[in-house]
Amino acid sequence: MTKQKATNVTWHDGEISREDRYSILHQRGATIWFTGLSGSGKSTIAVALEQALYKIGKLSYRLDGDNVRLGINKNLGFSEEDRKENIRRIGEVAKLFGDAGVISLSSFISPYKDDRDEVRELHEKAGLNFIEVFVDCSLAEAEKRDPKGLYKKARAGEIKNFTGIDDPYQAPVNPEIHLKTDVMTVEEEVKIILDHLHTNGLILQPQFTRADEITQSAAL
Amino acid sequence: MTKQKATNVTWHDGEISREDRYSILHQRGATIWFTGLSGSGKSTIAVALEQALYKIGKLSYRLDGDNVRLGINKNLGFSEEDRKENIRRIGEVAKLFGDAGVISLSSFISPYKDDRDEVRELHEKAGLNFIEVFVDCSLAEAEKRDPKGLYKKARAGEIKNFTGIDDPYQAPVNPEIHLKTDVMTVEEEVKIILDHLHTNGLILQPQFTRADEITQSAAL
Repeated sequence: MTKQKATNVTWHDGEISREDRYSILHQRGATIWFTGLSGSGKSTIAVALEQALYKIGKLSYRLDGDNVRLGINKNLGFSEEDRKENIRRIGEVAKLFGDAGVISLSSFISPYKDDRDEVRELHEKAGLNFIEVFVDCSLAEAEKRDPKGLYKKARAGEIKNFTGIDDPYQAPVNPEIHLKTDVMTVEEEVKIILDHLHTNGLILQPQFTRADEITQSAAL
Repeated sequence: MTKQKATNVTWHDGEISREDRYSILHQRGATIWFTGLSGSGKSTIAVALEQALYKIGKLSYRLDGDNVRLGINKNLGFSEEDRKENIRRIGEVAKLFGDAGVISLSSFISPYKDDRDEVRELHEKAGLNFIEVFVDCSLAEAEKRDPKGLYKKARAGEIKNFTGIDDPYQAPVNPEIHLKTDVMTVEEEVKIILDHLHTNGLILQPQFTRADEITQSAAL
């Protein structure tokens, strides 16, 4: 006999709801918003987190300069107005992803508190999860790493308005997660975020829904 | 013994790829782009398709005026330039969804061939599936339905530049799917789209991955 076990799946004639989508994915949509200096480790952590989520069958999607600046925001420059609009649009895209059920991982310096707070407000008004992750790294350490050689250019005056050099970085006052990348390993950082997702009920059971896992349990 | 059955899941240390995401979802990301007159039935079909996909455990997400005009495009008006930018941004968002693995359902009149072709090109350049669905309805029938009372207002001159009245609708020349809503039922229309998705390998096995289904097969 076939028994209905899952209580979070409802069937109805109306429109498919956010909760319905979450039940397909066994996860709640969320926006994980990494903010920090250039070279602080935002992308490195996002990539490692994406892998860790994939391992437990969870869908995440990274939003970064590569797929945003060349796409939806390709008509934006670096004026104050455009930088603000850049973050606003990313926030709106992240919101749509969260509504769809995806855990989006946004890696942008996003130096201004007001801009980040607006994105947070967008999410909270829509009842969506917004997790601000302060990727805290000393300027000295970020500048030592300088993975893209940008600090060197900024110091040489070849790049203007560079965050940390001649433009301010406004640190989050009360972020959901505070990572100190001067002293933590990437593994530790990923674990902190995963724990947060578990503790806040964003990762639902069953954890394993990938084709191989399903086939495996059937074969046991 | 646990045997690796699925051949489409690869494990690696690098970044998670589009194919990895597709393997989690058992579907390929795709943009289903409904175009047609106001009142032609775009949203009705999208809602019915969303339900049908949910029933087989597939994740879709509707993009429409409600979540786009009030969000990512809230700073756009109805000038020619803004209407073009409206469609461009929706196309970019749909592209991100497709890359993430989601089947997005875009319901916008999108009356101009050039704008739609640009969205198609965006997708094709990125190796993403773009399915243009011409929701073909006679003006007489659409005006008879007039679900939002907009034709009445346009005829009375209260709305200017209304597609089909004082602004052109450029029908798709070679859409992937052509639905004639004057004569087809919504059920028939949904079946045509689902058949297209199956035929083109966008819906992968196993079809049932929702919690209830997994629990059911384990209990059998």
